[in-house]
Amino acid sequence: MRFEVTILGSSSATPIYNRNPTSQVLNINERLYLIDCGEGTQQQMLRFDIKASRIDHIFISHLHGDHYLGLVGLLSSLHLNGRKKPLALYGPAPLMEIIDLQLKYSETVLQYQIQFTATDASKVETILINDDVTVETIPLDHRIPCTGFLFREKKRLRKLIKEELERLNVSVAYYTAIKKGADYTAPDGTVYPNEQLSVDSNAPRTYCYCSDTMPTPSYFDQIKNADLLYHEATFLNAMLDRAIETHHTTALQAGEVALNNQAKKLLIGHFSARYKVLDELLDEAMSVFPNTELAIEGKTFLI
Amino acid sequence: MRFEVTILGSSSATPIYNRNPTSQVLNINERLYLIDCGEGTQQQMLRFDIKASRIDHIFISHLHGDHYLGLVGLLSSLHLNGRKKPLALYGPAPLMEIIDLQLKYSETVLQYQIQFTATDASKVETILINDDVTVETIPLDHRIPCTGFLFREKKRLRKLIKEELERLNVSVAYYTAIKKGADYTAPDGTVYPNEQLSVDSNAPRTYCYCSDTMPTPSYFDQIKNADLLYHEATFLNAMLDRAIETHHTTALQAGEVALNNQAKKLLIGHFSARYKVLDELLDEAMSVFPNTELAIEGKTFLI
Repeated sequence: MRFEVTILGSSSATPIYNRNPTSQVLNINERLYLIDCGEGTQQQMLRFDIKASRIDHIFISHLHGDHYLGLVGLLSSLHLNGRKKPLALYGPAPLMEIIDLQLKYSETVLQYQIQFTATDASKVETILINDDVTVETIPLDHRIPCTGFLFREKKRLRKLIKEELERLNVSVAYYTAIKKGADYTAPDGTVYPNEQLSVDSNAPRTYCYCSDTMPTPSYFDQIKNADLLYHEATFLNAMLDRAIETHHTTALQAGEVALNNQAKKLLIGHFSARYKVLDELLDEAMSVFPNTELAIEGKTFLI
Repeated sequence: MRFEVTILGSSSATPIYNRNPTSQVLNINERLYLIDCGEGTQQQMLRFDIKASRIDHIFISHLHGDHYLGLVGLLSSLHLNGRKKPLALYGPAPLMEIIDLQLKYSETVLQYQIQFTATDASKVETILINDDVTVETIPLDHRIPCTGFLFREKKRLRKLIKEELERLNVSVAYYTAIKKGADYTAPDGTVYPNEQLSVDSNAPRTYCYCSDTMPTPSYFDQIKNADLLYHEATFLNAMLDRAIETHHTTALQAGEVALNNQAKKLLIGHFSARYKVLDELLDEAMSVFPNTELAIEGKTFLI
């Protein structure tokens, strides 16, 4: 099953050096999920050939402009391009108030329904379950209410041991039940335990999106063992004071979060405008956690 | 005196084909004035090397998203980049409500003052007078309240006839008064009329910005004799029905507006997403009014 993330924006606060504010698009089994939507996200989708019409779920972490100012434009474009199917939107409660006010004064009545779920940054909540994925909020520690999002692949079916099934002459009609964990009773009454006929599939993969936040232990348990951990790394550690003051994370700290919580891979982003070149941020995170990459715009990372 | 306009966005409704929604920046005597601010205007300023910090006046024509959704991001970036001097903002009254709501939820208190002037689309009003320019609203005919803006250069001083002044031995101390229209009384009591000593300077130049609107005669008197008329031309005339329905103008009609109101030059923009190539729009406007150009992004037009 496809499970990958494409970076649409990696800048913090302001667009600069051709870096756009934060946005990412997840492709999970050919369904698209948008995470954050900074100004210019629409334009980035055109640039990287992401079809906005394929997005059915949008997640907004918090109400700092660099994470959502592209949303009303995107909603409007979907409307103008004829969208009829509902769109699920997840974010802080005031987000709908902001959208409604802007639609009101533009005298726009969207042709499709927004199904809004308000997030609560004070606790973990499961906000979406479908055939492919469950999504939980990750309560983060920022200046205003902010949640990350944890995408966990649905538990996959067990893998059949084909040779054994053929040796026992098991009818194909039983395969689905066995994949789901059932034992098999042969015509002669012999019961074959499931473990003899199938093996556990790989553990469900997880993508953890943590932006914006201080590296506070309150969310560490939840993000443990992530297959891919996206963590903001706004500053170099030389700017630790500034990171603390603004409730952000340094690249060194992002590496430590990944290391201490057994991430398989770390992706850093939300780079401050003071860094024209990003090598030092990468080097700093890699000094603690070597399997780190930069959230470069247009780049796709498999999970 | 420098008087020129640079196009930052020329798309209607949605960004497409590398065309951004509407925004323009006027340079009048080295002061910058921003007209409309569609999503991505900040990014366009970076692209075309326009220093946002130099803008002291922002004019918003109306509250359709493609004309203002880049504004809150721009205001926020100015704040983050340390702006302290006040910013004058002109637009429909609800614009401040929209800005205030977004600043409230991001818990942002701007370090500089926004001096807001609400525009009234029901009448012509002079909204700015400074040493270089006066700005009037142009009440337009759109689906929601919408004003264009007329920028008129301040009347310039008369030009001295240097040879005559030298022949009469007029002291330099009198030059400013003569430029302002005073007669000159020589030490022997002879009065020399101003017309003998100076000539009228060129008529003040005007830039008329008309977007979005149907071509309705109510604003024609006001825009007569524009040195440069920017007029929206969303559709080809084959789409006249659609233009009427959406309260827009066709390229043919834009040419007629320029012709019938004695514009010296016409600039067309606000191109519908259905036109990937713009040649036909240009040809259609030029068939009526040959001195027409396309509002191509990044291009600067002298007024």
